[in-house]
Amino acid sequence: MENAPRPAPPPGGWSARHLLSVDDLSRDEVRHLLDLAEHYAGYLRAGAQAPRRLAGKTQINLFFESSTRTNLSFELAGKKLGADVINVPVAASSVNKGEGLVDTAQTLAAMGAHILIVRHSEPGVQEALARRLDCAVVNAGDGAHEHPTQALLDAATIRSVFGSLEGRVIAICGDVKHSRVAGSDARLFVRLGAEVRFVGPAHLMPPANDFPSVARYDSLETGLAGADIVMALRMQFERMSCDAEREAASARYFEEYGLTHASLRFAKANARVMHPGPMNRGVEIDDALADDPERSLILRQVFYGVAARMACLDALLTGGIRAERDSDRNRP
Amino acid sequence: MENAPRPAPPPGGWSARHLLSVDDLSRDEVRHLLDLAEHYAGYLRAGAQAPRRLAGKTQINLFFESSTRTNLSFELAGKKLGADVINVPVAASSVNKGEGLVDTAQTLAAMGAHILIVRHSEPGVQEALARRLDCAVVNAGDGAHEHPTQALLDAATIRSVFGSLEGRVIAICGDVKHSRVAGSDARLFVRLGAEVRFVGPAHLMPPANDFPSVARYDSLETGLAGADIVMALRMQFERMSCDAEREAASARYFEEYGLTHASLRFAKANARVMHPGPMNRGVEIDDALADDPERSLILRQVFYGVAARMACLDALLTGGIRAERDSDRNRP
Amino acid sequence: MENAPRPAPPPGGWSARHLLSVDDLSRDEVRHLLDLAEHYAGYLRAGAQAPRRLAGKTQINLFFESSTRTNLSFELAGKKLGADVINVPVAASSVNKGEGLVDTAQTLAAMGAHILIVRHSEPGVQEALARRLDCAVVNAGDGAHEHPTQALLDAATIRSVFGSLEGRVIAICGDVKHSRVAGSDARLFVRLGAEVRFVGPAHLMPPANDFPSVARYDSLETGLAGADIVMALRMQFERMSCDAEREAASARYFEEYGLTHASLRFAKANARVMHPGPMNRGVEIDDALADDPERSLILRQVFYGVAARMACLDALLTGGIRAERDSDRNRP
Repeated sequence: MENAPRPAPPPGGWSARHLLSVDDLSRDEVRHLLDLAEHYAGYLRAGAQAPRRLAGKTQINLFFESSTRTNLSFELAGKKLGADVINVPVAASSVNKGEGLVDTAQTLAAMGAHILIVRHSEPGVQEALARRLDCAVVNAGDGAHEHPTQALLDAATIRSVFGSLEGRVIAICGDVKHSRVAGSDARLFVRLGAEVRFVGPAHLMPPANDFPSVARYDSLETGLAGADIVMALRMQFERMSCDAEREAASARYFEEYGLTHASLRFAKANARVMHPGPMNRGVEIDDALADDPERSLILRQVFYGVAARMACLDALLTGGIRAERDSDRNRP
Repeated sequence: MENAPRPAPPPGGWSARHLLSVDDLSRDEVRHLLDLAEHYAGYLRAGAQAPRRLAGKTQINLFFESSTRTNLSFELAGKKLGADVINVPVAASSVNKGEGLVDTAQTLAAMGAHILIVRHSEPGVQEALARRLDCAVVNAGDGAHEHPTQALLDAATIRSVFGSLEGRVIAICGDVKHSRVAGSDARLFVRLGAEVRFVGPAHLMPPANDFPSVARYDSLETGLAGADIVMALRMQFERMSCDAEREAASARYFEEYGLTHASLRFAKANARVMHPGPMNRGVEIDDALADDPERSLILRQVFYGVAARMACLDALLTGGIRAERDSDRNRP
Repeated sequence: MENAPRPAPPPGGWSARHLLSVDDLSRDEVRHLLDLAEHYAGYLRAGAQAPRRLAGKTQINLFFESSTRTNLSFELAGKKLGADVINVPVAASSVNKGEGLVDTAQTLAAMGAHILIVRHSEPGVQEALARRLDCAVVNAGDGAHEHPTQALLDAATIRSVFGSLEGRVIAICGDVKHSRVAGSDARLFVRLGAEVRFVGPAHLMPPANDFPSVARYDSLETGLAGADIVMALRMQFERMSCDAEREAASARYFEEYGLTHASLRFAKANARVMHPGPMNRGVEIDDALADDPERSLILRQVFYGVAARMACLDALLTGGIRAERDSDRNRP
């Protein structure tokens, strides 16, 4: 295990300094990350110590929006590679002593952070930080906008089952409008050659001009026809702007759009289901399907979450000439 | 130190996959854990790095009931052996996004956890998780039911002073009824050949049919006669069901049952006192006795807590054929 | 990097067992810590793994007053040297189960802590603990009293720019009365040969008999004349005893005492500004000066915070004959 060969770097070298959006990555960089994710999945499966490529590096997790799952996944990923990982308890942090977001982040960077993992409810915060800070910044979710590592882990999960996304039909179902996962996933999957569809009621669809290459369906029967992958989204009740919207969302949602073994019959015979979690059981998906090891990839997504984040941390911090050149720029 | 020989495995091999109750362990397995605890105590005393036998392994601490002391002890134990240790902040976790206990635990297991340390106020939660999850589960306390690592650390503490528990007389005093420590301790000590007694007022004794091999005394004078060890229990005010019970518990409790140098004169000349902590000073025990280095083993219990938990983690994760065979079963 | 020679120990050997006040250290010990801080700054700048001199050692951070910045800095410092670092969540700790401060600290020490980092709002708590506990104690701030590692990191920062503090003029401006930083800094800087001044309104000055060797000025114009370093203090609104004091403090404070490029013209041509953070921008200092890389050492202070704390941990735990002799004294 210790001697498994590391995947070759992308042909043109690794150049991304930050990971703010899946669109920042070249197609070769994406492929490299997926190869690396599979590489690290091997260590995780064997319970073997991965090479400590990030020994001496400092990773700071700064989550302004609580997300236990994503935070733990990044924490584990960094520790597995030997990084010194610090979680900032935001509720108790200096932000409360009147210090602003940028000062807090600059202070963390000045402590010697090589990489900052940031979740924030406001779109674009990570980009603003990346422009100001002298360390790598990873977007771990910014409002309903982007969630690039989720897209990468979903792609790695699909590849681990289907070999490739090329030509696969992927139906993303439910609350597309409020989901950062749907957007990041759709853009990445299309670039990797998949056919992506959005399936759900009209009031949960994004504006008509967004995602021109994604077809829209308002019934599972038509939307799932020929699908290899059916992905349920979490109903983002907390991002809906009014009660009416919330009620419309839950009222009879499960009857029409909830995923079950029955609805999966519209898809291909060997179709698999995914869900970014945490699930609202009985709303987006029923228990029998969520827990069916033949059909559900949901726990596999969690597993590839750690592997894909190991890949991202490794590539950003050790991946290329630019990372090396930049690493000491302006250190205080 | 680095070359201290590791104790031999139990003659029949190590077979326990989980640690839910002290009754799950064979007598040979218990002896092996006590030997291992003493082995690791040596490293801790010397401030020397123990062999990193758990490098690459992931330990996740999931405490639904707050218990700083036990949580820190497990955290230290895992880190000392090189595991990647994660504390899940339960208050902020997905359980609050409507995700249930089993989903949360399954998600943590899917992240690559090899061992889950669980404390919960409800008896039996850990057993239910152990049946569902594909990783080792340790019961770090389930309500008033079981606390197996406390029993093991108490046994290791006693052995470090008296050499063995065989034939020793151990008086467990106070609120036996609401204590998970008393039950786990009593069952383990009896199996290791000690004579165990419960000492306290009738309303704090467990039902008459429980613990048939443990004699009961309602005064320190009779209960401590001939005792080698006198263990005070924490008065579990928080587990008592009504105010009347609480008042009865504290009213004049110290006068009748509080441990002092005076009450210790009923016991053997070299008797020692123990307490699982945190102490209610002036209720279960007075300051002079609690802080008497000649008599009190209370801080030594804390010290052996880390060593005994290192032993448990090590044995469960690297101890045997079954652990190896199971370790990758059903990894996603 | 891995082979950079470690600075020689102080001529008389290292003898401090605790770090409670800068006055506990001999001048040679201070110099050694500053040399070590510079040594570790090299590793941090390079993102290189420092020698894991604290492998097997346990560091416990016990912050009764929340201070994200100082806590993270100590946490990183310990991890960089390979220590097992534990943060005690005080809000949730046994202190709330009725266990007192000393019992909590003794329990942590008994868990095998080699060093306890303590912040508390009450002056002298750390000294009381140091007398009782069998491990090293570091004062990470006790009310308005002492903050020795801040003084050391400030000295290390100044030395990294000016080579030495000998003969330098350092003006400490603002709320001296409520600042533990001002006192610790002033005493250390004077011992290192600097001329120290306090600059601010009379009601924010300490009692007249304190700090006899520090001159006092009530205007920036006179106080900054000839200064090499101008240090703004955080306005400690939270330590002021009444609203009147608070109002007096903020009313027109910035106009008279706020640091700007204009006020810096009173000082030497190449003068630099410092601030212990977190800043109240627009109160003690304006944005243009705080963020001017030619003038501001504020982020460099944060960086040297980690390096200086690495130096302290290393020296206290591995520094000398006394540390070795004491390390196992009375282990339970």
